[in-house]
Amino acid sequence: MKIGLKWIISFSIIALVAIGGLFWNPAVNTPDTGEFLSEDKIVGADVAWILAAAGLVLLMTPGLSFFYGGMVGRKNVISTMLQSFIALGVISMVWVVVGFSLSFGESLGITIAGKHYGIIGNPLSYPFFSGVGNLPHKMMAPTIPFILFALFQMKFAVITPAIITGSFAERVRFISYLLFIVLFNIFIYTPLCHMVWHPDGLLNKYFGVKDFAGGTVVHMSAGFAALAGALVVGNRKNPHHEPSNIPYVLLGTGMLWFGWFGFNAGSALSASASAATAFGTTTIASASAMMTWIFFDRINGRSVSALGACIGAVVGLVAITPGCGFVSIQESLFIGFITAVVSNVMVNWKVLKKIDDTLDVFACHGVGGIMGMILTAIFAHGEKASLLHGGIEVFLHHMAALILVSAFTFFGSLILYKLTDSMITLRVSEESENKGLDLSQHEESFS
Amino acid sequence: MKIGLKWIISFSIIALVAIGGLFWNPAVNTPDTGEFLSEDKIVGADVAWILAAAGLVLLMTPGLSFFYGGMVGRKNVISTMLQSFIALGVISMVWVVVGFSLSFGESLGITIAGKHYGIIGNPLSYPFFSGVGNLPHKMMAPTIPFILFALFQMKFAVITPAIITGSFAERVRFISYLLFIVLFNIFIYTPLCHMVWHPDGLLNKYFGVKDFAGGTVVHMSAGFAALAGALVVGNRKNPHHEPSNIPYVLLGTGMLWFGWFGFNAGSALSASASAATAFGTTTIASASAMMTWIFFDRINGRSVSALGACIGAVVGLVAITPGCGFVSIQESLFIGFITAVVSNVMVNWKVLKKIDDTLDVFACHGVGGIMGMILTAIFAHGEKASLLHGGIEVFLHHMAALILVSAFTFFGSLILYKLTDSMITLRVSEESENKGLDLSQHEESFS
Amino acid sequence: MKIGLKWIISFSIIALVAIGGLFWNPAVNTPDTGEFLSEDKIVGADVAWILAAAGLVLLMTPGLSFFYGGMVGRKNVISTMLQSFIALGVISMVWVVVGFSLSFGESLGITIAGKHYGIIGNPLSYPFFSGVGNLPHKMMAPTIPFILFALFQMKFAVITPAIITGSFAERVRFISYLLFIVLFNIFIYTPLCHMVWHPDGLLNKYFGVKDFAGGTVVHMSAGFAALAGALVVGNRKNPHHEPSNIPYVLLGTGMLWFGWFGFNAGSALSASASAATAFGTTTIASASAMMTWIFFDRINGRSVSALGACIGAVVGLVAITPGCGFVSIQESLFIGFITAVVSNVMVNWKVLKKIDDTLDVFACHGVGGIMGMILTAIFAHGEKASLLHGGIEVFLHHMAALILVSAFTFFGSLILYKLTDSMITLRVSEESENKGLDLSQHEESFS
Repeated sequence: MKIGLKWIISFSIIALVAIGGLFWNPAVNTPDTGEFLSEDKIVGADVAWILAAAGLVLLMTPGLSFFYGGMVGRKNVISTMLQSFIALGVISMVWVVVGFSLSFGESLGITIAGKHYGIIGNPLSYPFFSGVGNLPHKMMAPTIPFILFALFQMKFAVITPAIITGSFAERVRFISYLLFIVLFNIFIYTPLCHMVWHPDGLLNKYFGVKDFAGGTVVHMSAGFAALAGALVVGNRKNPHHEPSNIPYVLLGTGMLWFGWFGFNAGSALSASASAATAFGTTTIASASAMMTWIFFDRINGRSVSALGACIGAVVGLVAITPGCGFVSIQESLFIGFITAVVSNVMVNWKVLKKIDDTLDVFACHGVGGIMGMILTAIFAHGEKASLLHGGIEVFLHHMAALILVSAFTFFGSLILYKLTDSMITLRVSEESENKGLDLSQHEESFS
Repeated sequence: MKIGLKWIISFSIIALVAIGGLFWNPAVNTPDTGEFLSEDKIVGADVAWILAAAGLVLLMTPGLSFFYGGMVGRKNVISTMLQSFIALGVISMVWVVVGFSLSFGESLGITIAGKHYGIIGNPLSYPFFSGVGNLPHKMMAPTIPFILFALFQMKFAVITPAIITGSFAERVRFISYLLFIVLFNIFIYTPLCHMVWHPDGLLNKYFGVKDFAGGTVVHMSAGFAALAGALVVGNRKNPHHEPSNIPYVLLGTGMLWFGWFGFNAGSALSASASAATAFGTTTIASASAMMTWIFFDRINGRSVSALGACIGAVVGLVAITPGCGFVSIQESLFIGFITAVVSNVMVNWKVLKKIDDTLDVFACHGVGGIMGMILTAIFAHGEKASLLHGGIEVFLHHMAALILVSAFTFFGSLILYKLTDSMITLRVSEESENKGLDLSQHEESFS
Repeated sequence: MKIGLKWIISFSIIALVAIGGLFWNPAVNTPDTGEFLSEDKIVGADVAWILAAAGLVLLMTPGLSFFYGGMVGRKNVISTMLQSFIALGVISMVWVVVGFSLSFGESLGITIAGKHYGIIGNPLSYPFFSGVGNLPHKMMAPTIPFILFALFQMKFAVITPAIITGSFAERVRFISYLLFIVLFNIFIYTPLCHMVWHPDGLLNKYFGVKDFAGGTVVHMSAGFAALAGALVVGNRKNPHHEPSNIPYVLLGTGMLWFGWFGFNAGSALSASASAATAFGTTTIASASAMMTWIFFDRINGRSVSALGACIGAVVGLVAITPGCGFVSIQESLFIGFITAVVSNVMVNWKVLKKIDDTLDVFACHGVGGIMGMILTAIFAHGEKASLLHGGIEVFLHHMAALILVSAFTFFGSLILYKLTDSMITLRVSEESENKGLDLSQHEESFS
């Protein structure tokens, strides 16, 4: 059996990274560059909660693998699950080597009216996590070790490509997928993350974009990348089948909901009232969207299904993500409700159905992220913080940012898919597709 | 296809709640009514633990859906799971609108000998969570934001109806079930919760009932509601079948056990030695009950089964719930042991078997709750705290309360089932029952 | 049906323990022996994290049951799962009665050059957890209640025998297995735990063995016990079959990875930068090993499989366990990589394949533990802490300890298997083996 060159290269890269890292300055003590606070500024309670939260966010990726895996056809369960799962490996490694540095390193960007606005981080700031140590970073997270902040952020980077997989499930080649997510992480995720979450980031500082826990960075970007992916990879030959295992979808939803507390309430970066509020709006938006989805399905002539309840719950979680720390419980009820209606309409919209987005990633995550961003710009509390609080300017900036982000993530992904495809064909052969990816890609089967 | 009026009403209610909430005073800052402490009284460590604990309790409901779903027949797996899962939606919404207020609002009740004893909370105290903010409540939970307390309590309200579902599984109509659990939450759960856990509650203040984590409020109430439910809905046509998936039961048990740490150790409402003790008694009672159950099964001629191990473990968790913070590790060993023996005898008792309580909810949760309450009144530490500590009076009060609670939850539920049934028939048609609820209620199937 | 005497004895032992414990001095307040600090030394944040961590470690055992259960043949899924799961019952009880005392009680041992070196704890120090109370122990864990330390340690004792089960899966008798793990816990685990983790333990104090989270105590001991077990029980009649359910393996891996944060970062026994570092090295070693495993498989002509990704991830977690708090992120990348290569070679090594270690426990946990121990002795930070930090002596001591531990756990287990076998035959009958253990041992089946 001939082993493709691409696999030898893949293994070599891993080996190079693993061995090469050893020769990088393995500084565990952060050098004193003035960016860091002293160790006594660490707040134990915040550390306790963010450790738990970071663990919870990790669990979301296996959760997603079950959420998606249960929905696809029986010949593609394992491959779909593995596509999510493997992001824990690929993206974690990329993040250590360069991703964190590109996201939160020294801000590189443009100057407008004498002010600096960041586009991307300096890859040489924290390569191989060097300089990422025990001391808290003044601006990023002043009460927890910088390494904990970097690890917490890592889990967000990990789940984003995993979310995308739902759109081109059942027909993507595994190795091409791996290549794409590396490119996506480096060229789409990290600049977006920098622009939204770095204190000097363009979308943050110039546009005043509020994104508490990743509605833009994670869900909108994944949603648009999913849309582009479905377009580039093309429709499946045989798109009709029953979901292979609804209990897996329920399990995945439970794991996602549970993990989302880490995602959203953890984004407060402290064990505080802000975290508690985010916890509450998160679970209530999800509850509201779940109930809305099943009843809306029913009054439109569809059955009340477990699948619908699960999708609804996840849509609610997506919708509340950007605003979870900025809105009230009452508003989260509404956010869950209205987003569920809009996403449900989108899922069933004939025009969109022409694009074979296997698991409706765009209609759920993309639209959910957009709705969340708009609703945050309407409801966020604070002086001039949103439309309802005298901040029409903030609202308009949000809308402009929304268009920018949509265009950037959609077209950016499109280019990266094309690039990937030119290197290794993205789509499996028709024979492999008929056989199912479980067997054709992994020689495994779900009986 | 004609859409039943009941579905249109259901959707309308959700819409009304979601939109109506916006017009409620969306106070995120609690008004100063003297009930609340200042923000600096918040203890970060307690917040960190209760955030984690509240997440853990959420996970119990999906856990329960697997615990139950794996036990029913293949035609009813998804419907059984969904019945648990949907409580996360329904009860969360009810809790926000009025449930929390009825449970922990201003105490309404009776006056005995010049003293006030609460029966139920004022629904106008915290409707739509208004007034539930960041500041800690002096009496309820003085070191964590009130909103976190309200959210932690919410998860208990959510799981209680989910527990009930095991008794009428395989034959209940989905929409009637939803209606019932709303009524149950409002008319049984919230007054009981108020009477046991509000500082002025009747069972708490007058009877001195000790219920650390919900043996009475959650398990006894669910157990008796289950018994009433099985009686009202009636026996299944074809009650014999193999459990559909034992690994699901194992998974559910693992999730329940894990989540129960949040339930029990979280009920200390602090990251303290009390929480650590509750953690220990919880896991040891469960271990003890698991081993007792399988060996007791074996010496009675049944096989040592994974199903038995799982049921035993859960019975142990139920039994220790009311006393987990009050007893020692040694006593928890005994509590697990004796409750497992009693519950096992009840599960196999011919008289009780005549009632078709599908998954033995009464024998496990009801009897487990009763045993826990009795054993707490025997063993609880502290001066005059229990029978063994010079508190015969406490013991007798507990016994009286036990009878009151049993009668209240059983007959109260009975009335609510009848009321529900008069509005929408509780039981599905015989045809639907034969077909299985997965297909007949949700058009889904578990293959 | 005749009930075997062994079952009556088993039930009687449980009853005796459960009732006997009541008559033991149920001291919840630790007597003042000078070993304990006052209650105000408890640090809430550390308690919050260790409560969460202890819960996470519990979840690893159900996680392992899915990891293993999905790999075995369809006739042995439930029995394999139950073997892991039941350890939560058996070992928890043994731990309370005597295990904790043997591990962390007053150090009994030998005197070399006037210095005391502990071999095992005094069983009378904390029998039935008496003396294990709310106050923190000066030396063991000075900021959390001693009972929380004892419970956290308990979960490590629980998972160790569960790991072993993979080697003799599909042919071991359930009751013999129970007897063996009791003996293993008492005669192998507790002395090893004492020698490595007690401040006066021989391997700790004399050999200077560094084992942050149990590479030696948990994984090496389980690995060698597994090897001995496969040898004593003998090869299966029909060892070839497809894994029954790959999604279960993915689920189990997700649960293990998630739980391992409690295992490793919890072993810092505080919510600190040390915990954050351990969190990071843990997840990165796992990521690195996962990617290495699948690519290494592929360049050796095997397919890239979900099963491989899962095994790789777990091997990475095992490898980093002893060093997780001592090495840098860069080093953890390398540790994951090199251990994955070595374990992968071992799994596919023909010589080792002659021993029917059903799920490659030795090649994964044993070899992973050994590699972890060697790599810790090479990389651990600190003055003279390891080979690369001027500590050639530490390195050589580690190597000597490695040989000692290997011999002790292998031959010790061998003796205990023989002893068990002489009391109750370890292996099921050929008929039972053909039928599968699910049906023959538990009358249950996985369809």
